[in-house]
Amino acid sequence: MSASVPPRRVVVLGSTGSIGRQTLSVIAAFAPHWQVVGLAAGKNIALLAEQAETFRPDAVWFEGAEYARWPGPGRLQPPEEMVSRPDVDTVVVATSGRAGLVPTLAALRAGKAVVLATKEVLVIGGPLIAEAVLAGCGEVRPVDSEHSALWQCLDGESDGIPVPEWGRPLVPGRFSPGRVSRLILTASGGPFREWPLERLPEAQPEHALRHPTWRMGRKVTVDSATLMNKGLEVVEAHWLFGAPWDRIDVLLHPESLVHALVEFADGTIKAQLGPTDMRLPIQYALSYPFRLPNTDLPRLDLAAVRSLTFCRPDPNRYPCFDLAVEAGRLGGTYPVVLAAADEAAVDLFCEGQIRLTDIPVLIRRALETHKPLPNPSLSAILNLYDETQIRLKEAVQWRRC
Amino acid sequence: MSASVPPRRVVVLGSTGSIGRQTLSVIAAFAPHWQVVGLAAGKNIALLAEQAETFRPDAVWFEGAEYARWPGPGRLQPPEEMVSRPDVDTVVVATSGRAGLVPTLAALRAGKAVVLATKEVLVIGGPLIAEAVLAGCGEVRPVDSEHSALWQCLDGESDGIPVPEWGRPLVPGRFSPGRVSRLILTASGGPFREWPLERLPEAQPEHALRHPTWRMGRKVTVDSATLMNKGLEVVEAHWLFGAPWDRIDVLLHPESLVHALVEFADGTIKAQLGPTDMRLPIQYALSYPFRLPNTDLPRLDLAAVRSLTFCRPDPNRYPCFDLAVEAGRLGGTYPVVLAAADEAAVDLFCEGQIRLTDIPVLIRRALETHKPLPNPSLSAILNLYDETQIRLKEAVQWRRC
Repeated sequence: MSASVPPRRVVVLGSTGSIGRQTLSVIAAFAPHWQVVGLAAGKNIALLAEQAETFRPDAVWFEGAEYARWPGPGRLQPPEEMVSRPDVDTVVVATSGRAGLVPTLAALRAGKAVVLATKEVLVIGGPLIAEAVLAGCGEVRPVDSEHSALWQCLDGESDGIPVPEWGRPLVPGRFSPGRVSRLILTASGGPFREWPLERLPEAQPEHALRHPTWRMGRKVTVDSATLMNKGLEVVEAHWLFGAPWDRIDVLLHPESLVHALVEFADGTIKAQLGPTDMRLPIQYALSYPFRLPNTDLPRLDLAAVRSLTFCRPDPNRYPCFDLAVEAGRLGGTYPVVLAAADEAAVDLFCEGQIRLTDIPVLIRRALETHKPLPNPSLSAILNLYDETQIRLKEAVQWRRC
Repeated sequence: MSASVPPRRVVVLGSTGSIGRQTLSVIAAFAPHWQVVGLAAGKNIALLAEQAETFRPDAVWFEGAEYARWPGPGRLQPPEEMVSRPDVDTVVVATSGRAGLVPTLAALRAGKAVVLATKEVLVIGGPLIAEAVLAGCGEVRPVDSEHSALWQCLDGESDGIPVPEWGRPLVPGRFSPGRVSRLILTASGGPFREWPLERLPEAQPEHALRHPTWRMGRKVTVDSATLMNKGLEVVEAHWLFGAPWDRIDVLLHPESLVHALVEFADGTIKAQLGPTDMRLPIQYALSYPFRLPNTDLPRLDLAAVRSLTFCRPDPNRYPCFDLAVEAGRLGGTYPVVLAAADEAAVDLFCEGQIRLTDIPVLIRRALETHKPLPNPSLSAILNLYDETQIRLKEAVQWRRC
């Protein structure tokens, strides 16, 4: 390994999930120069112990650690403390749902680089995250392949004009309104892209979980099938890059090789391409501003791919997408209810309790029936998130009785 | 027009050619902030006079101006003087063949930004240009859509490591060998991409001049049909970005919308896309480092395009490509003979004196029969260029008698 690889001392929150495991495989490729200082997981203690044996972190945490015995190496330390340790420079947030918000805020206030994989964090806490970036000297580095692509296409594209405080972007690089025309996110369109619309109510979880191009966790795979995932990504892009809503577009691109594009004021388009392997954006976020060779990673051969295709999404097929963008535009508590209701609805769908086409119906009802607040506090956000999930699940149970 | 558009004071060499005319249309969009200080052309004095009426340059020149009367506004001044005027910041070199070399060197030594459209200048004078960039404070900004794309994809992609003197790139931005894996130029494949190989000898000039995607001058259109154009571009890319020969690849891309791609050390690929309109790269080179909105320019809608395709070129179909890259690798006088022989051979083909398939045969013979020199001087280059053309044309005449 090259001596010019910068050292990294990393905390991984959500280390036993799909992104967490891939993050550790990237860190392993640059060990011992890159080190794992802390690991936190949910309930998969067996895998966490295995990871701790391999990476020997100083600190570990898991759900219910307060009351449990820890069999592996390292001492117990809660995530909020772990992320602000002075011996840590980078915090990977790859937990699911709302769990990532509090440690993300703590890490940013402590000036860390937050490598952010959890969409919900920015969707429900956008304004708080922006505040924390201003308060500390931290920065957010996206892991989503689409936002990583936008970040890479925007890098180096600044006009040298100072950014106003209120427009400070969360990632290094920014959306210069005079220089950038549009951010374009791509979406595979999911497994139902070509299903007859009238057959969508018959879609089963096993159909939804058969993603055409990416292998990912259950929640994000179902969200890709409904295009909710892309809607959440539009909200994320708004906060990450400070992009106005009407400058963020979506194109369907079934091959999932062009991850995003940026159109500039002069009509030039820059695109970022790569194989569908999350280790690439993970490594970029960890190694930034450097790019490191890693022979573990696949390469993309366009001559072998032969063809890249693009089309517009059909709004009738994907009502979740418009719900998400609309909630993002409305702001306040709307995106909180959106994210919580979606998580609950996807759970119910995966358990076979509701149909795929019920997901947008339930989310819309949750949005319409909640009492909106323009600037919710952190605790209001967390309470509303839990409450929305409970209410939605209860309503479905009630209907079924 | 926005007040933030930087002023430019421009000399255009080759103003009556295809690139020259498009350059003036871009300048007109930002007038009077952008001004034409000088215009030089070849034989089309009528059009030059018309341009001078519109743009009111201080200085003009044309072939044979020493002995002629100038009917338009502006005073006569030879190109080498025009380009080093203190009131000029940008020099567009869009002449044909070898004529651009001497004024390019003069402009660079005088510290100007040279917006370079003439491939031959870098192909025949690469080492001299590199020397002139080191000697003055000038820089080369490519106009070829492919090199503009590479430049844009490399911009912002530096590791912050100082560049050694010998590796100083000609354009702002550079090829960091540790960061960049490959430069990938795209080629349409020209009108003969799908012709049966055995029918190529029957190809007529009118077939060769029917380019599938770009409307360009005669020489570059025939060069696109033989893929000589892409070979010359590989040589240019080598000099412009300081890229090693084995890190420059070519892909056929019949739609000509992805102009070039850069693959980085981590496997990421960045691509630049845009409509097939030379005014885009011309404007970027003039406005750099700014990007300016220009409602005259078309936009690219990928959903309307639907599909982008890629494949490898067949070396049997395009022998000129390998000849060019090989001449570039050998260096010294080889690329000079290559460029001169190609220009002469394309002339003869367009006049109906030789077949399309004779072009590589004549160039190969010229390369093999010339007396190579490793470090030719400027005058040796210019003499060899003329001599090669005369010899090749004489040999063909002789054979036909």
